[in-house]
Amino acid sequence: MSDQNDASQAQAAARLQHIGNQLDGEQAFFNPNRLKFAAGMPRGRAVNNTPLNPLTFLLRSAYIRPQRIAMKHPAIGVEWTYAEWAMRVCALAYGLKKRGIKPGERVAVICPNAPMILDLIQALPAIHGVIVPMNIRLTKPEVNYILEHSGSVMVVVDHEFAHLADDFKGPVIVSKDSGGRDPSCQYEQLIDEGRHEADTVGWPGHTLIEDEESDYAICYTSGTTGRPKGVVTTYRGTYLAALSNAAESRIFTESNYLWILPAFHAIGWTFPFAITAASAGQVCLRSVGDYSPIWESITRDKISHYCGAPTVQIGICNHPQARKVPHDIRTMIAGAAPSAFLIKTLEKLNINVIHVYGLTETYGPITNCIQHPEWAVDLDEDEFYRRKAMQGHAFVGSDEARVIRPDSDPSKGYEDVTPNGKEVGEIVMRGNIVMKEYWKNPEATAEAFEGGWFHSGDLAVRMPYGMISIQDRSKDIIISGGENASSLSIESAIYQHPDVLECAVVARPHEKFGERAHSFIILRPHAQAKWAGKEDEFNVDLKAFVKPLLPGFARPEWVEVVPELPKTSTGKIQKHELRKRFSSIIPSQ
Amino acid sequence: MSDQNDASQAQAAARLQHIGNQLDGEQAFFNPNRLKFAAGMPRGRAVNNTPLNPLTFLLRSAYIRPQRIAMKHPAIGVEWTYAEWAMRVCALAYGLKKRGIKPGERVAVICPNAPMILDLIQALPAIHGVIVPMNIRLTKPEVNYILEHSGSVMVVVDHEFAHLADDFKGPVIVSKDSGGRDPSCQYEQLIDEGRHEADTVGWPGHTLIEDEESDYAICYTSGTTGRPKGVVTTYRGTYLAALSNAAESRIFTESNYLWILPAFHAIGWTFPFAITAASAGQVCLRSVGDYSPIWESITRDKISHYCGAPTVQIGICNHPQARKVPHDIRTMIAGAAPSAFLIKTLEKLNINVIHVYGLTETYGPITNCIQHPEWAVDLDEDEFYRRKAMQGHAFVGSDEARVIRPDSDPSKGYEDVTPNGKEVGEIVMRGNIVMKEYWKNPEATAEAFEGGWFHSGDLAVRMPYGMISIQDRSKDIIISGGENASSLSIESAIYQHPDVLECAVVARPHEKFGERAHSFIILRPHAQAKWAGKEDEFNVDLKAFVKPLLPGFARPEWVEVVPELPKTSTGKIQKHELRKRFSSIIPSQ
Repeated sequence: MSDQNDASQAQAAARLQHIGNQLDGEQAFFNPNRLKFAAGMPRGRAVNNTPLNPLTFLLRSAYIRPQRIAMKHPAIGVEWTYAEWAMRVCALAYGLKKRGIKPGERVAVICPNAPMILDLIQALPAIHGVIVPMNIRLTKPEVNYILEHSGSVMVVVDHEFAHLADDFKGPVIVSKDSGGRDPSCQYEQLIDEGRHEADTVGWPGHTLIEDEESDYAICYTSGTTGRPKGVVTTYRGTYLAALSNAAESRIFTESNYLWILPAFHAIGWTFPFAITAASAGQVCLRSVGDYSPIWESITRDKISHYCGAPTVQIGICNHPQARKVPHDIRTMIAGAAPSAFLIKTLEKLNINVIHVYGLTETYGPITNCIQHPEWAVDLDEDEFYRRKAMQGHAFVGSDEARVIRPDSDPSKGYEDVTPNGKEVGEIVMRGNIVMKEYWKNPEATAEAFEGGWFHSGDLAVRMPYGMISIQDRSKDIIISGGENASSLSIESAIYQHPDVLECAVVARPHEKFGERAHSFIILRPHAQAKWAGKEDEFNVDLKAFVKPLLPGFARPEWVEVVPELPKTSTGKIQKHELRKRFSSIIPSQ
Repeated sequence: MSDQNDASQAQAAARLQHIGNQLDGEQAFFNPNRLKFAAGMPRGRAVNNTPLNPLTFLLRSAYIRPQRIAMKHPAIGVEWTYAEWAMRVCALAYGLKKRGIKPGERVAVICPNAPMILDLIQALPAIHGVIVPMNIRLTKPEVNYILEHSGSVMVVVDHEFAHLADDFKGPVIVSKDSGGRDPSCQYEQLIDEGRHEADTVGWPGHTLIEDEESDYAICYTSGTTGRPKGVVTTYRGTYLAALSNAAESRIFTESNYLWILPAFHAIGWTFPFAITAASAGQVCLRSVGDYSPIWESITRDKISHYCGAPTVQIGICNHPQARKVPHDIRTMIAGAAPSAFLIKTLEKLNINVIHVYGLTETYGPITNCIQHPEWAVDLDEDEFYRRKAMQGHAFVGSDEARVIRPDSDPSKGYEDVTPNGKEVGEIVMRGNIVMKEYWKNPEATAEAFEGGWFHSGDLAVRMPYGMISIQDRSKDIIISGGENASSLSIESAIYQHPDVLECAVVARPHEKFGERAHSFIILRPHAQAKWAGKEDEFNVDLKAFVKPLLPGFARPEWVEVVPELPKTSTGKIQKHELRKRFSSIIPSQ
C-alpha cells in the first residue's frame, strides 16, 4: 500500500468537509476515507447500541481492506476491490433512490450468479428497500404471481431472463452483465445516475436502518407443493446467520468463495454477508449447468469455499476434470440429505464437507453435523461417514433445534422424541435465525409457528448419541404394511450399488401393503452400456444388492432406470413430479 | 462416544418428564440431554427473537460437545468436560439462588485465574445476578470502596485473598480452590446446595434473561487516576464482543486457551464466552508471577491461544525456558502499546501476535491491527513490525473507531484528524461493544459519552494508509519546549538498545523546557553485571544510542536504572506512581 499525496488529501478533506457540513443532522465524517465508507447512523441512538445490520460488513471491509479483491467475474474478466465495489453499491443505492424506491418497498431481482444480484443484496438495505430474489427457473406465471403477491415496484433482470419480466407493468431494468463496460446497459445507467452523489456525499448520505427487526428480504419458497410462500427475513437475523455461517465454515480474509449455490436461494444462505464479514473474496459463475468452469475456477481463483446441494456435488465429483484439489476446500452441503458415499467421495478430493441443514425459513442452514474427534478413533470409515451424513446441532447464533412428538401438546411446549434412533418426530426450531413471517399470509405463519416453534415439516429421529438423523419430509415417508419406511434410508442403500449415479425413491400405491417404494435410477456412464436393454436384469441385481441392507417393508418394489430426474433450480429432486406418475390412484399432495 | 443404555435412558426420560410437567409455565424439555442443558426461555418471546445471551454458548457446547474438556486446572490435577462443567455451573446458580441472590443483585468475586471465577462468570447470568470481578492486587480500602459503591450483597473470595473481604458485613464465601475435592470448602458447599435441583430440574429451572440490554457485569477500572469507576456491561454487548474476539483470534473447538490475562480484568476481555462459543478448552493458572508454568502448559496442554499485556509478554519471551513453540500460537496483546521489537520477538517463537486495543469500557479489545498481505511483499522487516505495532480497525461487531480533533464541535459530530500521521486527536468509539454506563455515576457517563461517542482519553494520529498510531494517554504526553513528545515513541527507541529489558518514560518538570523525558530502565540479566556501578557510563551510552532515533525535544534528559517498575495487576506500568517522584514540583494528576 503506497502512501497517498498529503497535499491532495488535504484539499479533498477540505472539499469534503464543506459537503459534510451541509449534511443536515447526520453524523458526517470529514476524513475522506471515512466519508466514503461510513454510512450515517440513525438519529438518537444510544452510544452503546447500533442496530445489527449486515450491510455494515461491506462498509467495514471497504474501510479496513480497501484493496482486497471483493468480487471477481471471470467470465467477462472484471474484478472489483472492496473500495471500488462499495462505491459501486453506494452509487446503485442512490440510483434506486432517484428512481423513486422508498423505504419498505420491494424490488424484485431475476439474476443468475452474476454481480448484479450481489450488488443489489447490498444496495437495497442502504435505502431500506426490500429485496425479492427470484428463482431464474420459474415460469412466467410463477414470476407474475410473486411480483403481484410481493407488491414489487420494480424488477431488475438479467438480459438472459428478461422475458420473465415481460408482463410487469412497473419499471423493468435489464442488465447486460457487462461489468460496467457497456454504457448502453440499463443497469449500468442506473448506477451512473447515482455516481455523482456517491462521489461527493458518499455513504454518509445513506442512513442505517433504525429497527434491526425490519424486513430485509422476501424469499419465496421454491414451492414443491402449493403456491410459493414469501419468507420475510430481518436485518438482525441476517446479521447473526451470516456471522454463524462465517464461524461454521471458517471463512477468513484469505478465503475465496465460489458462487455455485444460487444467490437468489435464501440470499445465498446469507453467504454474501458471511463473505463481507470476513473481508473474503467472491467469484461469480453464471451457470452451473456445466461443471468445467467450476473445476477451472477452483485452481485459478484459489477457491476455498463453496456451497451446494447434493445433486450439484454429485455432478462436481463425477466430472471428467474432477481430481484431488491441491489446497483445502470447505463446502457446505444441504438442500437434501447427502449420502455417506457422496461425503466420502468429496473428502477424498480434498473437499471437506460441512454438512448443514435448514430451510428458506431458517435463512438456509441452521444446524450443522458436529463432527467429534473421537469418531476418527472409535469408528470405522463407513460409520464415520454415516455420522457425517446426519445432523446436527443448531448454529452458534440460533437456539437448539428439537425433534418433537407430532402428537404432543403445544401448550406444554411439546415433548421431545426418545433419543433411541427409532421414534420419528418433526424437526422444529426457534430463535434469531428463524424467519419473521410469511409475507401477507398470517394463517400460514400461525400454522408454521404453532406452539412457539417453527415447524419444518421434516421428519427425523434423535440418536442415542444426540445427533438428528433426518428421515424425510412427512410426505416422503412410505407407509408400507403399517410400517414407516424412510425413502432417504432406501436411497442410501441404493446409492451403495456401484452402478448407481443418482436415485430417488417415492411411495407408490400398492394393493396389499397400501404403499411400497418405487425407485428411479440414473446409471453411471460406464454402466449404461452394460445394462442397456437389460432393465429386468438390473432390476434383479439391484434388489438382490439392497436386500441385506433394508427390512422387507422398505425394499423397493419397483426399479425404473431413467435418463434424468426432475429438479428444482436449487438441485432438489422434485419428488412431487415423480409422484404425479401415480396420481391417478392417490392424490400426490 | 459409546451409545448409552436405551432402557435406563427411557427410565430417566420418564422420570424427567414427570419433573418437567411440574415446571409451571416454562418450556420443559423431556429428552434427558435437553433437560440438562436447555435453559428456560423467557415467556412470550416471538419465535424469531431470542435475547442475545453469552450464557447460551456454554449450554450449547454442553449439549453438542458434552465430552470435550471444557476446563483444566493442572495445578490441582482437575478437569471438567463441558457436560460436567455445565452441571456444576447449574448447581452453583441454584446454590446462589438459595442463599438469596435476586435478579439484578451484585455479587463480588475476588479470585486469581482459578475455576471459581470462571464458574461465576457463567452462573450469575443464569439467575440474572450481576458479577463484580475485583482485582486481586487491590488494597483493602480499595476493595471496601468497590464493595460499597457496587452495593454488592455477597463476596466469593479465593482463600489466598480472603483477608481482603474481612471488613465486609454481608455473607463471604471462601473457596479453597480444591476442584470439588474438599467438602469443607465453603464454595463447594455452595455448589452442593444446588446439586439436587441441578440433577433433577436442571437448566430448565433457570430462565434466560428477558432484556438483552440488562446489566451483565460491573468491572471497576484499575484506576490509574482518581476513584475507580464501575463499568456496566450488557448481555448483548458481551455476546457480540465474544463472537468478535472468537473471529479475530480464530478460536475453534480444537483450540486451548491459557489464562494468563486475569479473568477479573474486563471479564477476561469476554474470552470466557469466546471460548464457550467455539466449544474450545481453557486452562487455569493461578499465578503469572513465575513464567515456568506458562512454558510448561504451552506444550503439555497444547495451548493455541492466550492474551497478555506487553510486560507479561516480555517476561514470557525472556524466560530461560523460552523456545520456538512446535505448534502455532495466537496471542492477543493489548493493555499498553507493544513495541515492534516485542512483536518480532514473539513471532520468532511461533507466537503470532494479534495486536488489539481497547479499554474496560469497550469490553477489552475493540480494534485490531489489520495486517495486509501486501506488507509481506512491500515492506522491509522493520517497517512490517512497526505497522504491526499500530492500530487498527474496530472489530466486526463494533462500529468503526475514530480519531477526532479534541477541539471540534460535538454538535456537528466532531471532525476527524487529517490522516497525515502528524495531527494528534483522541480515539473515540461507539456501538454494541461500548459499555452501557458508569455505575451510579451519571456525570462521568455523560462526560465519557459526550457528542454520542465514548471518549477513550487516548491520543493517536491517523496514518495516510488508514491505521491509527496510538501516541499516549493525554497525561503521558511530554510537553517539551512547546513540542508534544510521545512517551511511547521514546520508549520504542529505548527498547531498541540491546541491554534494555523494560522501560518507562514520564514527564519531569524542567526549568528551561517546561517538561523533559525521564526514563526508568530495567536492564537485561546479562547486562546487569556489565553496567554495575557504572550508571553514568550507561547513561551516556543510552543517550548516544537514541540520539539518531529521536528529535532533540524528545530525547531523555534523565536515565535511571531501577530493579523493577510499579505495575497494575494487569501488567500496565503505573506511570502515576513514577510521576509521584516529581510531584513535589508539579501535581501528578
